[in-house]
Amino acid sequence: MATILVLNGPNLNLLGTREPGHYGQATLAQIQRALEETAQSEGHRLQFLQSNAEHLLIEAIHKAPQDDVSYIIINPAAFTHTSVALRDALLAVAIPFIEVHLSNVHAREPFRAHSYFSDVAVGVISGLGAEGYALALRAVLSRLAQDQQ
Amino acid sequence: MATILVLNGPNLNLLGTREPGHYGQATLAQIQRALEETAQSEGHRLQFLQSNAEHLLIEAIHKAPQDDVSYIIINPAAFTHTSVALRDALLAVAIPFIEVHLSNVHAREPFRAHSYFSDVAVGVISGLGAEGYALALRAVLSRLAQDQQ
Amino acid sequence: MATILVLNGPNLNLLGTREPGHYGQATLAQIQRALEETAQSEGHRLQFLQSNAEHLLIEAIHKAPQDDVSYIIINPAAFTHTSVALRDALLAVAIPFIEVHLSNVHAREPFRAHSYFSDVAVGVISGLGAEGYALALRAVLSRLAQDQQ
Amino acid sequence: MATILVLNGPNLNLLGTREPGHYGQATLAQIQRALEETAQSEGHRLQFLQSNAEHLLIEAIHKAPQDDVSYIIINPAAFTHTSVALRDALLAVAIPFIEVHLSNVHAREPFRAHSYFSDVAVGVISGLGAEGYALALRAVLSRLAQDQQ
Amino acid sequence: MATILVLNGPNLNLLGTREPGHYGQATLAQIQRALEETAQSEGHRLQFLQSNAEHLLIEAIHKAPQDDVSYIIINPAAFTHTSVALRDALLAVAIPFIEVHLSNVHAREPFRAHSYFSDVAVGVISGLGAEGYALALRAVLSRLAQDQQ
Amino acid sequence: MATILVLNGPNLNLLGTREPGHYGQATLAQIQRALEETAQSEGHRLQFLQSNAEHLLIEAIHKAPQDDVSYIIINPAAFTHTSVALRDALLAVAIPFIEVHLSNVHAREPFRAHSYFSDVAVGVISGLGAEGYALALRAVLSRLAQDQQ
Amino acid sequence: MATILVLNGPNLNLLGTREPGHYGQATLAQIQRALEETAQSEGHRLQFLQSNAEHLLIEAIHKAPQDDVSYIIINPAAFTHTSVALRDALLAVAIPFIEVHLSNVHAREPFRAHSYFSDVAVGVISGLGAEGYALALRAVLSRLAQDQQ
Amino acid sequence: MATILVLNGPNLNLLGTREPGHYGQATLAQIQRALEETAQSEGHRLQFLQSNAEHLLIEAIHKAPQDDVSYIIINPAAFTHTSVALRDALLAVAIPFIEVHLSNVHAREPFRAHSYFSDVAVGVISGLGAEGYALALRAVLSRLAQDQQ
Amino acid sequence: MATILVLNGPNLNLLGTREPGHYGQATLAQIQRALEETAQSEGHRLQFLQSNAEHLLIEAIHKAPQDDVSYIIINPAAFTHTSVALRDALLAVAIPFIEVHLSNVHAREPFRAHSYFSDVAVGVISGLGAEGYALALRAVLSRLAQDQQ
Amino acid sequence: MATILVLNGPNLNLLGTREPGHYGQATLAQIQRALEETAQSEGHRLQFLQSNAEHLLIEAIHKAPQDDVSYIIINPAAFTHTSVALRDALLAVAIPFIEVHLSNVHAREPFRAHSYFSDVAVGVISGLGAEGYALALRAVLSRLAQDQQ
Amino acid sequence: MATILVLNGPNLNLLGTREPGHYGQATLAQIQRALEETAQSEGHRLQFLQSNAEHLLIEAIHKAPQDDVSYIIINPAAFTHTSVALRDALLAVAIPFIEVHLSNVHAREPFRAHSYFSDVAVGVISGLGAEGYALALRAVLSRLAQDQQ
Amino acid sequence: MATILVLNGPNLNLLGTREPGHYGQATLAQIQRALEETAQSEGHRLQFLQSNAEHLLIEAIHKAPQDDVSYIIINPAAFTHTSVALRDALLAVAIPFIEVHLSNVHAREPFRAHSYFSDVAVGVISGLGAEGYALALRAVLSRLAQDQQ
Repeated sequence: MATILVLNGPNLNLLGTREPGHYGQATLAQIQRALEETAQSEGHRLQFLQSNAEHLLIEAIHKAPQDDVSYIIINPAAFTHTSVALRDALLAVAIPFIEVHLSNVHAREPFRAHSYFSDVAVGVISGLGAEGYALALRAVLSRLAQDQQ
Repeated sequence: MATILVLNGPNLNLLGTREPGHYGQATLAQIQRALEETAQSEGHRLQFLQSNAEHLLIEAIHKAPQDDVSYIIINPAAFTHTSVALRDALLAVAIPFIEVHLSNVHAREPFRAHSYFSDVAVGVISGLGAEGYALALRAVLSRLAQDQQ
Repeated sequence: MATILVLNGPNLNLLGTREPGHYGQATLAQIQRALEETAQSEGHRLQFLQSNAEHLLIEAIHKAPQDDVSYIIINPAAFTHTSVALRDALLAVAIPFIEVHLSNVHAREPFRAHSYFSDVAVGVISGLGAEGYALALRAVLSRLAQDQQ
Repeated sequence: MATILVLNGPNLNLLGTREPGHYGQATLAQIQRALEETAQSEGHRLQFLQSNAEHLLIEAIHKAPQDDVSYIIINPAAFTHTSVALRDALLAVAIPFIEVHLSNVHAREPFRAHSYFSDVAVGVISGLGAEGYALALRAVLSRLAQDQQ
Repeated sequence: MATILVLNGPNLNLLGTREPGHYGQATLAQIQRALEETAQSEGHRLQFLQSNAEHLLIEAIHKAPQDDVSYIIINPAAFTHTSVALRDALLAVAIPFIEVHLSNVHAREPFRAHSYFSDVAVGVISGLGAEGYALALRAVLSRLAQDQQ
Repeated sequence: MATILVLNGPNLNLLGTREPGHYGQATLAQIQRALEETAQSEGHRLQFLQSNAEHLLIEAIHKAPQDDVSYIIINPAAFTHTSVALRDALLAVAIPFIEVHLSNVHAREPFRAHSYFSDVAVGVISGLGAEGYALALRAVLSRLAQDQQ
Repeated sequence: MATILVLNGPNLNLLGTREPGHYGQATLAQIQRALEETAQSEGHRLQFLQSNAEHLLIEAIHKAPQDDVSYIIINPAAFTHTSVALRDALLAVAIPFIEVHLSNVHAREPFRAHSYFSDVAVGVISGLGAEGYALALRAVLSRLAQDQQ
Repeated sequence: MATILVLNGPNLNLLGTREPGHYGQATLAQIQRALEETAQSEGHRLQFLQSNAEHLLIEAIHKAPQDDVSYIIINPAAFTHTSVALRDALLAVAIPFIEVHLSNVHAREPFRAHSYFSDVAVGVISGLGAEGYALALRAVLSRLAQDQQ
Repeated sequence: MATILVLNGPNLNLLGTREPGHYGQATLAQIQRALEETAQSEGHRLQFLQSNAEHLLIEAIHKAPQDDVSYIIINPAAFTHTSVALRDALLAVAIPFIEVHLSNVHAREPFRAHSYFSDVAVGVISGLGAEGYALALRAVLSRLAQDQQ
Repeated sequence: MATILVLNGPNLNLLGTREPGHYGQATLAQIQRALEETAQSEGHRLQFLQSNAEHLLIEAIHKAPQDDVSYIIINPAAFTHTSVALRDALLAVAIPFIEVHLSNVHAREPFRAHSYFSDVAVGVISGLGAEGYALALRAVLSRLAQDQQ
Repeated sequence: MATILVLNGPNLNLLGTREPGHYGQATLAQIQRALEETAQSEGHRLQFLQSNAEHLLIEAIHKAPQDDVSYIIINPAAFTHTSVALRDALLAVAIPFIEVHLSNVHAREPFRAHSYFSDVAVGVISGLGAEGYALALRAVLSRLAQDQQ
Repeated sequence: MATILVLNGPNLNLLGTREPGHYGQATLAQIQRALEETAQSEGHRLQFLQSNAEHLLIEAIHKAPQDDVSYIIINPAAFTHTSVALRDALLAVAIPFIEVHLSNVHAREPFRAHSYFSDVAVGVISGLGAEGYALALRAVLSRLAQDQQ
């Protein structure tokens, strides 16, 4: 049984209530439930956190090695473009992670094309809405299956 | 009766005590009192917050729709140049806002010429010291008057 | 009694008749009248000029010291982005000035984000339509009141 | 019967007398006559102006709506690269226009590759000498014919 | 029953035989088979093409509307960074597409960070190896299910 | 009697059927017919080729000197921004050419503002739709008439 | 007796446990103890704070004048490259500070070469590991000795 | 006997009365007189013009060939950095010219380092105050002497 | 006996017949013969291909490992500056290659200074005309001799 | 007993006599004496050289391996920003070195922010005046002590 | 009686013998003699040095204060664009200097447009050939005369 | 009999003893001997110089015309990227030269991609180690043979 940590950056608590054109209609609670069900059905544990505070996300990452987290799925939201501190936290714990974006960052303001995470991520999924999380989880589960072989 | 939210970014709690050459001699409490008096005399309510923490400002913005805030006046201070998360919070709640800077950002370091807020603001007032807030409030009051027509 | 000079750059003679989406519905004559009334009610004199010719604006600035102009309010319009000559005229007479833009220059073409005036202005007001002039005048009147103390 | 306005920027009064390598041997008067003949033969009126003064060109554009000008053909010459004011005049009157350059601007100094007009023009013709005006007029005439259908 | 077109750019015929560090060990034939099985099990048809020739890929896209292709999954490989022609073909047929990259383009040479496809794609999946195709197909299948509702 | 070669780059085979907002409603076959008629009525021969394959366009240019082609009219389409090889082919055969674009490249994505052809072309016509070809042919015919004098 | 404030930015709590290749093997507690001993042996007081939260570091700086802090030694870690707010806090209290980096920021990702602190610092020490703090403290002590003369 | 034309750009009419730190204390009338005396003592004629209007300077240049002007000395002032039209006028008449700046343009704002004139001038003299004109005239006189040989 | 593959990019079929100022007077057939003679006299086999089609060059590279090609000499011509696909083909087969340019790419248009090949080549020879191929072959022969030791 | 080489670049011979605002009041001889005393008291030898000639500094570095130099402390002064040759000399001998700057290079002209040494140095100390040398020596001594363990 | 130092950078020893198109026909010895005569006739002393070695020029500047040099005239030649060390030497001795270039640096390669000297020079004279030295000397003599008043 | 000058820049005296990974194992003396033998066997004279001092290399170039040097082979080493003075010396004597680099400059730090020599060289050979000199000499010998015809 592995532990998977799903991290969500600022403003994602508003998901499903605001700007559905960019971010879709699913709420974060719905996304969390769906991911937990998938993980549990495969025999794994899923931790889920949303925070508007950079330091709480950093500290969740710091705690991950103690919790034996195997993979992190992170939607850094606005921190994608500004937070070297989150990047450094992920580098420090050296847990492989997948970066997820609900909207297509390349189709919006130019500053959204740069990520402080992508070059050190395993991979990136963007533009596929809430399903992006499900796909990232599926990729993690495949890797967990491979790691066990 | 409308509600107007006035937000103040990091270090503005020091106003009136430090660097008067850049920021003037009025304290933030004096500015708050003057704005509240003006708003009340026009029959409106004014909320006022200063925080050095980005997430508290974000969460004040998230709460604004529940409080029926009609306009936001924001002096993002140093976050002007770095906080995509605050920008995204303002975009998410879709409440019109005016950006205020006490000092003339164009007369200082080059990095202060870029704002993550201006292109999505109604307007920007900079360089006019504490009076910038009063002018922004006057602009909001005019718009409230127009909106009522 | 002080003299305040209000300068308006090219195409502003069309105000109120064209592109109301960007510039609002007030005509320049209406703006002039409103500003003159405010100035006179405070016991000051207001000069007002619009020109499509850069050299006429320059020469109005050159004449300002003889007319004992205390403050200039200038909406350089398109010259904002191209006229070093107007900048130099303002630097030469060394009269403090406030820069006003009717539309939000940051929400339009990228080249409108650069101004040859902002770094040497007292302050900048943009995006607030015709009211921007009224706010700039109010800021000038406050400063005149302060200067007299 | 439509009215077509042909505008010519600075130094074009020298046409045919100087730098024939870049600009060809036809004088501006010859070009004007040829264009007037073509327009008249199709039953339209053609206005023609050359000026070295930006403000006179701006004011000709301002007057165009009163004269019911349907299309503008403009060779902004050196103002191509520097005049936001002329661009704004054309945007304000919202009359469709074709941009013409006698010489191939891409084969000269790098700064000539940028135009403040092309992105808001209907189209651009460059490098084809005096015939560029005739081609632009032909394009206008086709559009007038189409508009009438 | 929908038709899904999967396109693969240059050098992908070598997949599984060369540079497994970057691209993984699955051959393109294996990937094709797995995708076809998934599509068929959901009652859909899957077309699959690899070509080292830009024009053959373009022409496959041109043919897609006749074949009633609903979605395209494309791994443009090296053409990601250089082919405006492929971009224009996709824009012309206006079929929604998902961009897939086997390797993490952000962890390689800087020129691989720019894609001529991402801003007009529905979404992008990169760095997840051959599974990226499976995830893209899953996203397409979800959308097909949604479109049918 | 001269021979004129008209070359058309990738995706132009779709003309008239797709994206009429950008490219107009005429099909390429209609454009070809109209150009052939004009050329023949002036006693000249017109060759016409569209290809999605860069190498076929290159080889058509290589063959042009044997066919005594006097002028080339080329709409490089997407190759405008990416094909040094086509540029080099045109430089190698040293036949004067006019560059045509149906849409206004300056009003679209920024990367469309750069052409590998314009600085070595005789001239450029853009944004005037299918009529751009007719204007280019007219310019060629004028030059042929001049060359004969 | 002077007070010296030592501030440590995000992720430095992990020191000695993670990425020793970049940051060395000393823990932050060991560094703190060594610095306190040195300061006390010279008759001075040393305050020491690590935080992953930008606002707590800002507020520690705001409190420094009340605590009569004479010098600040700051390792802003990831905030080096992103925090204008911390820079502004240091500028506001106007206490001289030395910037310390454990790793050689110039030998890592290009974005680490830019600091929002260096141009307003007294000096910078980087790449010398935990000893960098000791050297910074020695520089502070020398300056305190000089200031007393 | 040769004719030398001395042209002065915008704001230079204020010379000697404003910003002596940048521009020195000599008035433009004094400079004119001194230059005329020198020219006459060498048997040459000197024309002298200052204008704040770009088009008047352009037209003075256009008239120069009729007046048999042999050399132009030009201080374009603010137009140095913005006027392609003046550059083109000088290129059109093809009269050799020397560019003069009173202040050291390299010691001021960065945008003053670029000149639209220097690369087509014979030479440039900057930073030497009113004497710069005298030196330019001396250079012209030497060249006239050489030309006569 | 080793096999050496010599690849030639677009337009090189014209060699010796066009633009001898840039590319010299030898035809490609002459170059091929000379290289074959040298290779054979040293007991090696030489394959030689020119193509204007990127995909044919790519496929020749793909076939090289089956043909036991030891070294590739490639003159990518215009593809030097645009073809990531060719670069990727060379990276995929991992056969060492030498890049040859007939003309001095640094003395021509600025875009010719960038190569997608040089940083992954063994070495580069440019500007030495047809002899550049002979020198590259000599370098390959030396390396083959060394490899055998 | 180890040997430490201290190298000083151009103009440092003037130390203590010129520009004390930037560089402090200690002479280079005083700095040398202090460093020698520290080194000797720890049982090590210190070589010290200042030169205005790049080649003499290069040759001192070349000689260092013969002299068994363990560490180099270098203040490249102006060569910091321009000398690839000195960088290459240090890379060639592969002796670890610390880069020292007396003044804070980040608080001066922008070109001083770039160093050809920092990314290959062990560490950098800047802005701490003559004490920077002493701190660098202390860092070297610590490393020598560690190396001996 | 004042001392004036004239410094000449690398390759200027070839003056008059090579590249007369760029640099004119006077030899450096002729220039030296002419300058000495002028200086002596005004009662001043002139030192003159040419060197291809940067360090010898630096050391001549270092010696200047001892020799009571009042002004320096320097033609840094190629060092204009590369020598921070010479710039620093001039800043260190704080003797006012005039920068002279024989050729028009703005009409040559782009890298010649940048000077490490101009922003700290009194003024710059370029493009006027050997006479540039004479003009610089005349400017120095005027300033010496003014200084004496 | 012709004279060929071979020049070697800084740090090349270390060849064969340091960094063989970048520069190979041949010493400079071995390279010199091999080149001399080849030149003599063809009846030519070869001069060979290595210097770490830019001015000695410049002066060797200045002396070349007196020695009737026909061709120069130069490996400017680190001066490749920084020495305008050497470039100017080569331009001044106008002797054709070939630029050689032992290592592949494109596979190292980005600043090594720019050369102050390549655009004025006959050709460039890089990345082929010591053999690069032999190839350059062969190219020179071919040209000498051609020149004699």
